[in-house]
Amino acid sequence: MATDSSNGHHQATKQPPLPSPLRFSKFFQSNMRILVTGGAGFIGSHLVDRLMENEKNEVIVADNYFTGSKDNLKKWIGHPRFELIRHDVTEPLLIEVDQIYHLACPASPIFYKYNPVKTIKTNVIGTLNMLGLAKRVGARILLTSTSEVYGDPLVHPQPESYWGNVNPIGVRSCYDEGKRVAETLMFDYHRQHGLEIRVARIFNTYGPRMNIDDGRVVSNFIAQALRGEPLTVQSPGTQTRSFCYVSDLVDGLIRLMEGANSGPINLGNPGEFTMTELAETVKELINPTVEIKNVENTPDDPRQRKPDITKAKELLGWEPKVKLRDGLPLMEEDFRLRLGVGKKS
Amino acid sequence: MATDSSNGHHQATKQPPLPSPLRFSKFFQSNMRILVTGGAGFIGSHLVDRLMENEKNEVIVADNYFTGSKDNLKKWIGHPRFELIRHDVTEPLLIEVDQIYHLACPASPIFYKYNPVKTIKTNVIGTLNMLGLAKRVGARILLTSTSEVYGDPLVHPQPESYWGNVNPIGVRSCYDEGKRVAETLMFDYHRQHGLEIRVARIFNTYGPRMNIDDGRVVSNFIAQALRGEPLTVQSPGTQTRSFCYVSDLVDGLIRLMEGANSGPINLGNPGEFTMTELAETVKELINPTVEIKNVENTPDDPRQRKPDITKAKELLGWEPKVKLRDGLPLMEEDFRLRLGVGKKS
Repeated sequence: MATDSSNGHHQATKQPPLPSPLRFSKFFQSNMRILVTGGAGFIGSHLVDRLMENEKNEVIVADNYFTGSKDNLKKWIGHPRFELIRHDVTEPLLIEVDQIYHLACPASPIFYKYNPVKTIKTNVIGTLNMLGLAKRVGARILLTSTSEVYGDPLVHPQPESYWGNVNPIGVRSCYDEGKRVAETLMFDYHRQHGLEIRVARIFNTYGPRMNIDDGRVVSNFIAQALRGEPLTVQSPGTQTRSFCYVSDLVDGLIRLMEGANSGPINLGNPGEFTMTELAETVKELINPTVEIKNVENTPDDPRQRKPDITKAKELLGWEPKVKLRDGLPLMEEDFRLRLGVGKKS
Repeated sequence: MATDSSNGHHQATKQPPLPSPLRFSKFFQSNMRILVTGGAGFIGSHLVDRLMENEKNEVIVADNYFTGSKDNLKKWIGHPRFELIRHDVTEPLLIEVDQIYHLACPASPIFYKYNPVKTIKTNVIGTLNMLGLAKRVGARILLTSTSEVYGDPLVHPQPESYWGNVNPIGVRSCYDEGKRVAETLMFDYHRQHGLEIRVARIFNTYGPRMNIDDGRVVSNFIAQALRGEPLTVQSPGTQTRSFCYVSDLVDGLIRLMEGANSGPINLGNPGEFTMTELAETVKELINPTVEIKNVENTPDDPRQRKPDITKAKELLGWEPKVKLRDGLPLMEEDFRLRLGVGKKS
């Protein structure tokens, strides 16, 4: 808390101090009030954990629980520096904050395709509302964009300067194009209104608290392995992805927010694996008895995606530390608990 | 007007006929109520002229007059089959119509860059509102998208299947990405709600009523030639465009609306001209005494753009008829009048 003993003489003529024990950093330069939209989700909740470690931070989470869950935040509920708001970002939110981590959006195809129009509204109107809030209160705002803005890329690995190869009218477009316009809005608010913006392009991330059965490949394979079901590799299986462990990603997001560069900056692990290699690794580490089988692919599935993280290294001093072989076992225990399949024998 | 004499016996038990002399076609199968958003603009007003030629059409124009003008519609103001509403499409519009031609959006860089955030809102929220209206009243809706969805294309000429090469965070993105998301919304409403949609991708169009001094190359050159100023060709001058005369374009839009195919369908003239060739043609036809000079280009200006109109030919039986050398003189008289430079001697 800020104290003001050196100025005791003049206190009487000033406004009384704000009643909250956590006063507004813009005026008191002590604590930082941070909004995390989508903070009950997989990445959001890990970000909240990290932000809460700093005793100078007050963290406010806004989530509509479409894909997020209060379970992910249960250790913070009731904490004096923490607050949880049931809120859909497509409605304006008028609160006083210093920083906004704007993560809110269903990120898995199963969820974002469920109601494509809602996905676009979340990306476009949600981002407009959060930019409006940032403008109103003078907050710095970080958007978690996505490697999906590169679509099915024709350049490998993808640097931030690559414009992408995205189908504007396909079944994935609500997410890809929605995020591209969210980025456009960020930079237009920056150019038009001088907002302090940060844009991260997040590549595939994995770790505890991923939604089980949300159609993402890592959670799919681990759930299948733990259930003793075949690991279903979408054909041809040679398409590649890079997988970043969630603690590495959260570290990158915080460095980006605290740093001086607006981005866009790729955050991801450049280690590239084919879907077949991933299945084989999960099988080896988690359940060597399951089989691996190929299934039909979804439309517009990118064949390859791998971040060029030169910019993150140079500007943020960031690179991922956790290897896939180390990260997968860290997920396993969480999935065993939630799937109720008991401890590893 | 629909008459119902065969059913005279049952009239007493029915609702009384609607009071308007132009009754709702869904029930009376006689007249067609057509909304044209952006109908006071350059293309919109020519479309209105054509629609008004059919005595079975009632035409409602919604325009905020940001770039459009009542002057363009003056011959229809007061006509019993015509109505003009001052309306910004970023607000919902609840009216009863059978067809919606959704053109509303500033289309010239000078105007769409003036307030990029507003341009995105017009494209995204405006299209959402018009789709909401179409869904509510069961209307068929046509979006005028743009060749700008192809960005700085890497494929020539551009077929509709080309995904484009667009910078998501540049100064033109508010328009390019805004229109891409507008297309996404059209197809998502079609897939999600079964709406009857039509998407046209309009390439450069010219003709009377273009805004003077709006930064578009044809109007620029003609205004410069008539004022006796140098024709300013953006460097290097070898970038190409195709120019479609507005009557051809309007014909294509109506064919698309009335046809069975949703699109997207390119509408444009595949005749390709470099900027230098265009300047030379304008000089020759309008004012042989002016000089041609090169000026600096704007960021992200596409080097080449030319429609592949195979689909329009096959599905709509459409192709442009007016040659550039015939169309430019048709513009000249309109520009002379508005510039006050008198008749050609």
